[in-house]
Amino acid sequence: MRVGVFGATGAVGKELVQVLGDRGYPVTELRLFASTRSAGTRITTPFGEKTIEVYDPAKPPRLDLALLAVSGDWSKAHAKELVAAGAVVVDNSSAFRLDDDVPLVVPEVNAGAAKGARLIANPNCTTAILAVALAPLQAEFGLKRVIVSTYQAASGAGAEGMEELETGLKEVLLNGGTAKNSVFRHPLPMNLIPHIDSFQPNGYTREEMKVTWETRKIMGLPDLLVSCTAVRVPTLRAHAEAVTIETLKPITPEAARAALANAPGVKLVDDVANAAYPMPLTASGRYDVEAGRVRQSLVFGDHGIDFFVVGDQLLKGAALNAVQIAEALPVKLAA
Amino acid sequence: MRVGVFGATGAVGKELVQVLGDRGYPVTELRLFASTRSAGTRITTPFGEKTIEVYDPAKPPRLDLALLAVSGDWSKAHAKELVAAGAVVVDNSSAFRLDDDVPLVVPEVNAGAAKGARLIANPNCTTAILAVALAPLQAEFGLKRVIVSTYQAASGAGAEGMEELETGLKEVLLNGGTAKNSVFRHPLPMNLIPHIDSFQPNGYTREEMKVTWETRKIMGLPDLLVSCTAVRVPTLRAHAEAVTIETLKPITPEAARAALANAPGVKLVDDVANAAYPMPLTASGRYDVEAGRVRQSLVFGDHGIDFFVVGDQLLKGAALNAVQIAEALPVKLAA
Repeated sequence: MRVGVFGATGAVGKELVQVLGDRGYPVTELRLFASTRSAGTRITTPFGEKTIEVYDPAKPPRLDLALLAVSGDWSKAHAKELVAAGAVVVDNSSAFRLDDDVPLVVPEVNAGAAKGARLIANPNCTTAILAVALAPLQAEFGLKRVIVSTYQAASGAGAEGMEELETGLKEVLLNGGTAKNSVFRHPLPMNLIPHIDSFQPNGYTREEMKVTWETRKIMGLPDLLVSCTAVRVPTLRAHAEAVTIETLKPITPEAARAALANAPGVKLVDDVANAAYPMPLTASGRYDVEAGRVRQSLVFGDHGIDFFVVGDQLLKGAALNAVQIAEALPVKLAA
Repeated sequence: MRVGVFGATGAVGKELVQVLGDRGYPVTELRLFASTRSAGTRITTPFGEKTIEVYDPAKPPRLDLALLAVSGDWSKAHAKELVAAGAVVVDNSSAFRLDDDVPLVVPEVNAGAAKGARLIANPNCTTAILAVALAPLQAEFGLKRVIVSTYQAASGAGAEGMEELETGLKEVLLNGGTAKNSVFRHPLPMNLIPHIDSFQPNGYTREEMKVTWETRKIMGLPDLLVSCTAVRVPTLRAHAEAVTIETLKPITPEAARAALANAPGVKLVDDVANAAYPMPLTASGRYDVEAGRVRQSLVFGDHGIDFFVVGDQLLKGAALNAVQIAEALPVKLAA
């Protein structure tokens, strides 16, 4: 396959290249695209040394698969050009996620939705991590209400976000100074920022609404009740989520654990006697989402559980899921 | 008043001394107690330089007010001796919080419960911060369900916890090493630990159950449905909580904001157009608990709201609340 990675120098773009290599995706030719700032840079990849190119809309490259880790605006402007030029496009931005004619896919949940599509949207990172854990619970117990509080890493704002956190922490710890901020709305070191993406008229942020809207679409449950509080926390690259669900059928922690343990993409980490539970420290760099801290809900009784999930934001939350979508496509992508 | 602070060299103990000074508590004599390790240390306080003493159970000091920021075991062993020796005791540990004959007090919520008592329990830090925000909502709308996810600072584990976080961060950031841990069960830098206090048979931690048990007692609502996920995050000294409530009467964000704005001990910080919302950065070192991000619940409709609260763990979560309890006591404490 001729594969192009767009936004190849960003945090997600770098992971895309790595994941393609790690998973043995059948790449025959790899082309890397980024902004003019990076043009000409040589990069070592699992597929040999590559030179960063600048995309020319007048001459879209001949690709079988295009993986986009760029802004929504860029995707809106160019994704369909790439499709027209013969590529199947997996877009990591929010540009097309809610379009009726574009499937939004977490392969463990709704791989079938990608069938035959030539433009597929990769979900919001928090949502992808949540969906793999919700799917087995929906299948067995039915979901009525989902309440999520997130603990989102700096990586959600890309390499610049991670850099700003590290630089700021050094300033605070070594010089007793104040962390500067430009990526985040406020300094993130030693702080929590309950503000990710823009505020909507209903008082939720767009990030919080993405969890509601995208979870419904991925799970095929347009009326599912989902409420989210999204909070940026001073960690580097794994997102965590405290989740409370109310179910249609009775549920026990034991039954929930069994469902999670058997679910693809989920690693049950729930041995509290040995202090084993999901954490960024253990989930970072891993493909599986960790789920644990499963217990009977104290507000929904035998129709609810509380649990905790942690997933690598750059992997299941972005690059891994995009490559899994490509893997799930049933046929060779283009002539 | 002759005031004794026990555990005076700890994070909470130091704040107790400071708060007594800042609020002009009528201290006529201040005595500071700590372990033998600190005995003889001279400390500058708002009441002059003081020498750390070691408590001798055989000769309890003559005090009007004893503020205890020590372990539950120490409190269990000695609090009643201090009462017998004439002091009113405000205990910051969990030793007596659930005893039927010991009031558990957040003055903005249930100051009356302290009346006439000579041993009063100061609540769990997360619970105290939550209770000041829940009380005005309960008064106006009635609470049915409360779902809380916490973001708890290192200070909840005392000065040693803060020190371990700072030292560990330096190691990670400067040497690319791995943070050591002894205070926390796992390294906290760049991590989240969903494990505070010990695990209970029902799978919740004791910290999480304290939020349930103590909220019920403080609010006088023994059947209130409260479920909590308590998570340690790499911040220094303010605890945050994402809260979803279901109410008995209909509630709107506007009405909830008005109730919070008028509530004692609460500062409404909810101007999202100007990126103003509760954060550790702004709530640290402040007496008031910040509440904001108020919006209609997407899972409970017109009978629920989501909101975010942040309070200084060492102040409203500990030292300030203890001094407020002392202030609320109606009469001179002892002869």
